[in-house]
Amino acid sequence: MNAPTDFDRLEIGYDIPARPGMAEADIQTPCLVLDLDALERNIRKMGAYIRAHGMRHRAHGKMHKSVDVLKLQIELGWACGVCCQKVSEAEAFARGGITDILISNQVRDPLKIDRLARLPQTGAQVTICIDDLANVAELSAATQRHGTELDCFVELDCGAGRCGVGTPAEVVEIAKAIAAAPGLRFAGLQAYQGSMQHIADHAGRKVLLDVAIAQVKEVVAALTSQGLAPEIVSGGGTGSYSFETNSGVYTELQCGSYAFMDADYGRILDASGQRIDASEWENALFLLTSVMSHAKPHLAVVDAGLKVQSLDSGLPVVFGRDDVKYIQCTDEHGVIEDPQTVLAINEKLRLVPGHCDPTCNLHDWYVGVRNGVVETLWPVSARGKAY
Amino acid sequence: MNAPTDFDRLEIGYDIPARPGMAEADIQTPCLVLDLDALERNIRKMGAYIRAHGMRHRAHGKMHKSVDVLKLQIELGWACGVCCQKVSEAEAFARGGITDILISNQVRDPLKIDRLARLPQTGAQVTICIDDLANVAELSAATQRHGTELDCFVELDCGAGRCGVGTPAEVVEIAKAIAAAPGLRFAGLQAYQGSMQHIADHAGRKVLLDVAIAQVKEVVAALTSQGLAPEIVSGGGTGSYSFETNSGVYTELQCGSYAFMDADYGRILDASGQRIDASEWENALFLLTSVMSHAKPHLAVVDAGLKVQSLDSGLPVVFGRDDVKYIQCTDEHGVIEDPQTVLAINEKLRLVPGHCDPTCNLHDWYVGVRNGVVETLWPVSARGKAY
Repeated sequence: MNAPTDFDRLEIGYDIPARPGMAEADIQTPCLVLDLDALERNIRKMGAYIRAHGMRHRAHGKMHKSVDVLKLQIELGWACGVCCQKVSEAEAFARGGITDILISNQVRDPLKIDRLARLPQTGAQVTICIDDLANVAELSAATQRHGTELDCFVELDCGAGRCGVGTPAEVVEIAKAIAAAPGLRFAGLQAYQGSMQHIADHAGRKVLLDVAIAQVKEVVAALTSQGLAPEIVSGGGTGSYSFETNSGVYTELQCGSYAFMDADYGRILDASGQRIDASEWENALFLLTSVMSHAKPHLAVVDAGLKVQSLDSGLPVVFGRDDVKYIQCTDEHGVIEDPQTVLAINEKLRLVPGHCDPTCNLHDWYVGVRNGVVETLWPVSARGKAY
Repeated sequence: MNAPTDFDRLEIGYDIPARPGMAEADIQTPCLVLDLDALERNIRKMGAYIRAHGMRHRAHGKMHKSVDVLKLQIELGWACGVCCQKVSEAEAFARGGITDILISNQVRDPLKIDRLARLPQTGAQVTICIDDLANVAELSAATQRHGTELDCFVELDCGAGRCGVGTPAEVVEIAKAIAAAPGLRFAGLQAYQGSMQHIADHAGRKVLLDVAIAQVKEVVAALTSQGLAPEIVSGGGTGSYSFETNSGVYTELQCGSYAFMDADYGRILDASGQRIDASEWENALFLLTSVMSHAKPHLAVVDAGLKVQSLDSGLPVVFGRDDVKYIQCTDEHGVIEDPQTVLAINEKLRLVPGHCDPTCNLHDWYVGVRNGVVETLWPVSARGKAY
């Protein structure tokens, strides 16, 4: 008999929600379930699209925070690597064997900069975003201490109104400083228009992306005129990827949510007016929940509340059912309108979370199911890695 | 030299945000910080109030999910034990040495029922809530399998509109079944009016609590007339505890948020019209965050977004500052209005989270600080324990 592995020591209902081989009906709730067939189809479809258009796909790992999902995106979807938002997240992906990592964010804290500068020692190629001249010197000094090299993107604010500089002159100034700094390499431009991704109307999204693309083109021209033509122009998300693809200026996409989907992205419309959860991407991520009280005939209570999902983009939607509706969410409970009293105690429902990214970050495990059977458990590798 | 403990192996900036002895200024953000002086004052104050009024305090552990905070509530605040919402949470508290545990919720899943029935084997006295006759037989059978005993409360819905039965007849019927069931003991009534806790107006809260108290009295009379006088009547929260205390019918309070406080509870008013974060309870819980981009003069970006706090009760408030304001929250970023450009890169801000319970559940550690120095790190013992 083999010694128990760490996994064997984990207890169902305390540490883990299920074991491979179990029926979906026996999974402990609340927990995240991945429909592996749908996930694989989404990953292959996006991969094929991006490849056919001659772009690179740097899959956004901040959404799923999972080394296993990322490896599937590399294997089935030709992703070149991962992007993520935090140094600790990047470390989790590096420890999982990912060798091409972009932190699509700024790093300013001295300890974080030090950890970042050591990260290439794992063998990974690491890229970081910069929006402040002072940061160039900080990063350069850290790479010098550790004998490493960081690729650097200048971050352009092309409409998100958050991080990033706004003018060609500022971008050129920072790019020049990077190019001159020991240990740093100017690799390109980070230009993600985040605030438009969730606008339902396709034409409305296009208007904002057209503005962003014009701005990016102007910046690329300014850089090129200074001998600093960017090797990579990176951006794009599930709500915009076709615009960047056809822009003639972007070279790399950072889509994330397409793989899992959520209720909020599901509501946005494609060019023909169809919801994209019908026309483009399948729901592959579900929050599995069970009915645990039905003391009132027309209201059932389920075990999935605020601690297993983020409400920032609205309530979850009960998948595949129009006879019942999730109408209220408190810390540990969801109230389900059940006008015909069809739900039974312990009955399981698949919820489509309102917003996948912060919902995934609440869980330790993905339960991968196929044909009603648990096939695999994947850890949410970078769960809670917010430093 | 001693072998390194597990704690010694943890890396600052990856596994943990700080180590005891560090200055608060060096803590890795974003992370939860506890002002230990304020926390101890809140705990002593509530403990003294409840004790002086001859009530028991079963501190709500679902809020902090921390064995260490609970032990402080027992030690400094005379708490009799913990209440929590999930079997896996109860297990975490039992593993931490807590010996009086109420799960103020229903448990219906067969595996969860089995785990629950085994929990008294740890030496803990365990109480569970019931709102359905069928659950009595399920729980009784499980205690028989394991040779254990469970105390049982009948849950009354006294206005929350969630779990619980609504009429004296239903309560009496379930109480009788419990009293007759092997392995179960009828111990009292769960009567928590949750939906009124956050109404700002004191008189408005009182109106709803008066209705609840009248309902509880009617139920207690019905039980008593059947020889089933409840030993314990349990309920109450930070927004209502004085009403239950002076009701003449409640015997036990379940306050939780008073210990940490949050922005939403801070806004509710006491009888004299003062905010309770000024008149009753101090902010002891903070989400520490750092400025990580300030590319626009009047907008700073901090590193605390949706993945380190719950927005269900609104945006966080910057503590002790009225010159800057947290105005927007995305996955990893907070946008701070900084009209006079006073914030510097890496400057730290203490945020008061909108809602403490789901915010605490996003973190692995509490960093306890006193006089600007890190005094202790406490694990969020039941973080993610949602089964």
